[in-house]
Amino acid sequence: MAGAAWDAFERRMRELVDLGGIAGVIGWDQQVMMPPKGAELRAHQSTALASLLHERVVDPAFGEAIEQAEAEPDSLDDARRASLREARRDRDRAVRVPADLVRELAMAEAEGFEIWQKARPAKDFAMFRPVLERLVALKQQEADAIGHEGERYDALLDAYEPGMRLVRLEPLLHELRDGLVPLVAEIADRPRPDVSFLARDFPAHMQIEFSERVMRDLGFDLEAGRQDESAHPFTSGAGPYDVRLTTRIVPGDPRGSLMGTIHETGHGLYEQGIVGKKIERSFAGMAPSLGLHESQSRLWENQVGRSRAFWEHYYPAYREAFPDALVDIELERWLRAINIVEPSLIRVEADELTYNLHILIRFELEVALLRGNLAVADLPAAWNDAYRAALGVEVPHDGDGVLQDVHWSGGAFGYFPTYTLGNLYSAQLMEAARRDVGDLDEQFRRGDFAPLLGWMRKHIHSQGSLQPAEETARAATGKPLEPANLLAYLRAKYGELYDLA
Amino acid sequence: MAGAAWDAFERRMRELVDLGGIAGVIGWDQQVMMPPKGAELRAHQSTALASLLHERVVDPAFGEAIEQAEAEPDSLDDARRASLREARRDRDRAVRVPADLVRELAMAEAEGFEIWQKARPAKDFAMFRPVLERLVALKQQEADAIGHEGERYDALLDAYEPGMRLVRLEPLLHELRDGLVPLVAEIADRPRPDVSFLARDFPAHMQIEFSERVMRDLGFDLEAGRQDESAHPFTSGAGPYDVRLTTRIVPGDPRGSLMGTIHETGHGLYEQGIVGKKIERSFAGMAPSLGLHESQSRLWENQVGRSRAFWEHYYPAYREAFPDALVDIELERWLRAINIVEPSLIRVEADELTYNLHILIRFELEVALLRGNLAVADLPAAWNDAYRAALGVEVPHDGDGVLQDVHWSGGAFGYFPTYTLGNLYSAQLMEAARRDVGDLDEQFRRGDFAPLLGWMRKHIHSQGSLQPAEETARAATGKPLEPANLLAYLRAKYGELYDLA
Repeated sequence: MAGAAWDAFERRMRELVDLGGIAGVIGWDQQVMMPPKGAELRAHQSTALASLLHERVVDPAFGEAIEQAEAEPDSLDDARRASLREARRDRDRAVRVPADLVRELAMAEAEGFEIWQKARPAKDFAMFRPVLERLVALKQQEADAIGHEGERYDALLDAYEPGMRLVRLEPLLHELRDGLVPLVAEIADRPRPDVSFLARDFPAHMQIEFSERVMRDLGFDLEAGRQDESAHPFTSGAGPYDVRLTTRIVPGDPRGSLMGTIHETGHGLYEQGIVGKKIERSFAGMAPSLGLHESQSRLWENQVGRSRAFWEHYYPAYREAFPDALVDIELERWLRAINIVEPSLIRVEADELTYNLHILIRFELEVALLRGNLAVADLPAAWNDAYRAALGVEVPHDGDGVLQDVHWSGGAFGYFPTYTLGNLYSAQLMEAARRDVGDLDEQFRRGDFAPLLGWMRKHIHSQGSLQPAEETARAATGKPLEPANLLAYLRAKYGELYDLA
Repeated sequence: MAGAAWDAFERRMRELVDLGGIAGVIGWDQQVMMPPKGAELRAHQSTALASLLHERVVDPAFGEAIEQAEAEPDSLDDARRASLREARRDRDRAVRVPADLVRELAMAEAEGFEIWQKARPAKDFAMFRPVLERLVALKQQEADAIGHEGERYDALLDAYEPGMRLVRLEPLLHELRDGLVPLVAEIADRPRPDVSFLARDFPAHMQIEFSERVMRDLGFDLEAGRQDESAHPFTSGAGPYDVRLTTRIVPGDPRGSLMGTIHETGHGLYEQGIVGKKIERSFAGMAPSLGLHESQSRLWENQVGRSRAFWEHYYPAYREAFPDALVDIELERWLRAINIVEPSLIRVEADELTYNLHILIRFELEVALLRGNLAVADLPAAWNDAYRAALGVEVPHDGDGVLQDVHWSGGAFGYFPTYTLGNLYSAQLMEAARRDVGDLDEQFRRGDFAPLLGWMRKHIHSQGSLQPAEETARAATGKPLEPANLLAYLRAKYGELYDLA
């Protein structure tokens, strides 16, 4: 197991991992702690660190270190092989894109973000269109530089969901869509639950207090992490022993802070679980894909945090925390309120069920853009048509339509499907956990989340990137990725809540 | 003013400055935000960043970039010349120390700090002695590697107080000592003010609130900085637009949080004032010495924050903030309490007057250690003798004696005198400001600190490192560094407070 070549590679890898941890901390700091006038300076600093990391990855000496370590297979166990696999993937992607294109992309992405920040409130797609056209063209060039087998989208998707390909993803998502659209339509015909009580007074400090209690109960270790407030909730940090979550108070809706916290806690539990001497401070000690990461946030938020059993445990205490607001609200009404299905315009406000339709619309459109089957000029109309067809809603203006998300403005094409992959994974993982650890609902009713967390720790978290995401999930569940579990779960849950036949 | 050589140098300098700003943020984060289990990971991360910065500085290409920029004098103004001067100084120091010695020093310093953390509470100098002996020997080697003209101390002092030499510092500090010792002895014969009321209840949140009010009044910009709590107050941050101060509540002593805040505000005002296109993101845009930096904290803390005029303005509001504790305490008693002189054992708890004696003792001892005139084995006895002679106190054990400070454990020899240099500078700057901007006391009584800050901004802050520290101060005050002003100020102030003849 010794190996001078491995040691030389490991030194370089550790530097990248350690400096990457620093990038995590300063990214968190920027959104949570930084005073406003510090923004320009911080942009320079983050750029300096990102450039440096890129320089280290494309350094020919790093390429040689990878090759030489690969050439001593006797010195490699599965964790080392996984780190080398990830190193080669990252480096290949990085060196294939010419420096000029890297620069052009960085400039277009910075400009895209800046213009988008103005175009969205101005509801002005024409303002955004030129830079989006440039971005699409540059991403096509980038995809060609990275290489693909006919689908440019694959080269971009691979950055977020390594190993996933359109030829597999597209039928999977179409099958999901075909199951979801009629279910959403059925529910749209049912009476809408009255959720007007959500506008009552839920004091902010009690919301934070309750969300921290739940975070702790679910198993988040506050000695190895923290929670703060930020405008947009996220999870970041310096590594598995320093995981930073954020939440926010949504005025007029107490569900926002609690569900946001549970969602980020799911990410945080994953990060805190990617430990063990074999994988720490290595590329193997990272999640293998955004989709698998998102499976953890979605699982704890939706499958746990919006379940009847969860609230049978927590609702009495929740009601006690907000006695005035919830005086006349029984558990059943609360359950319907946190699981209300409403076809709507805005992805980030969407419910568990329709959320996937928002994603599928974006996925179809970005695939068409990358394939050259859709011109940027035709994007708003295509967007509006898709919302009408899938969700039955009319888009009043582009600010609440095609301009609503930040992703494309920063060049993040291929990112959206990872959200829905997270939902697919979460349904399959939950089914497998139910099979392995007994009656989860009964455990939740007792406030016992340790068996579920233990199962995730063993089958997902501690696996890091030892295998690609789908292999990890397949080993845990015994099945390939498929929409059946998610559809069955959604149909059962919402069938009951909405009295469907 | 163009110059390709300058541009090439500037790119490298900016990277160092930007990454240095990141080091500032993660250092702050470590002490203020990091969860406890994150410590080991953070140590790796900080080391990775420090190694990288060192690598960039000793990189031969950086040396060439400095030389080539120096070789195009027509492209240089005073700010660029200053940046090159600082770059050459830093690089020369760095390249002269062999890599093996750098490593040995880093290991001895880490070990020294670890052992000191145990030896101090155990009051066990014998435990600390071997590593301190190794540290002294290694620092002697380091000093010889850096180079000096006979005094190894000079090579170490130069890291903190560039340009200062023992041949100049020693007589200056001896003259100060000769003036201070009799003044302290005189005061020791006077009745001690009754400060028992300080143990009354001063609610922590009111302490923080009041200290933030004062911080703002003095001119600290909270849009370009913030204040948090930490175990040991300090000032750090990412640069002049993102300055981070900390304070702490001292149980049983409300002076701690307020005076700590004013002290760090002095550092923070300096940092926020080192701005202007010419010097930002350059080596010229940094304080030229620790002593000059300390002059700002000492000036605002002592010359302003412990002055009668300051409290004539603030005391009514302070009393209102703590009505129960201060009901029977008139301004005069408060003034005496915050200016009490007490010969004592512990430097960090010392008053404005005796503080310098604590420093002078350390200075004498570390000079003797470096010169080889004092063996580490004889250090505790020499320490205790010096405390008896200068302050008239008996050291009960080494924990409250020679083991009390962290500095030597981390190899920081030559650091201590910068504290007293700060006091010397502050007295001279204050005298010059009084000469230039009129009746400061009258302004303080109105709560108007802008004229004093404006003077500091112009003569000190905005000067960055355009000149070495003493040149900057000389240009501001018209005088070289000398003890006369500090001695005169102390004698006048404490003569009045203690009714000396």
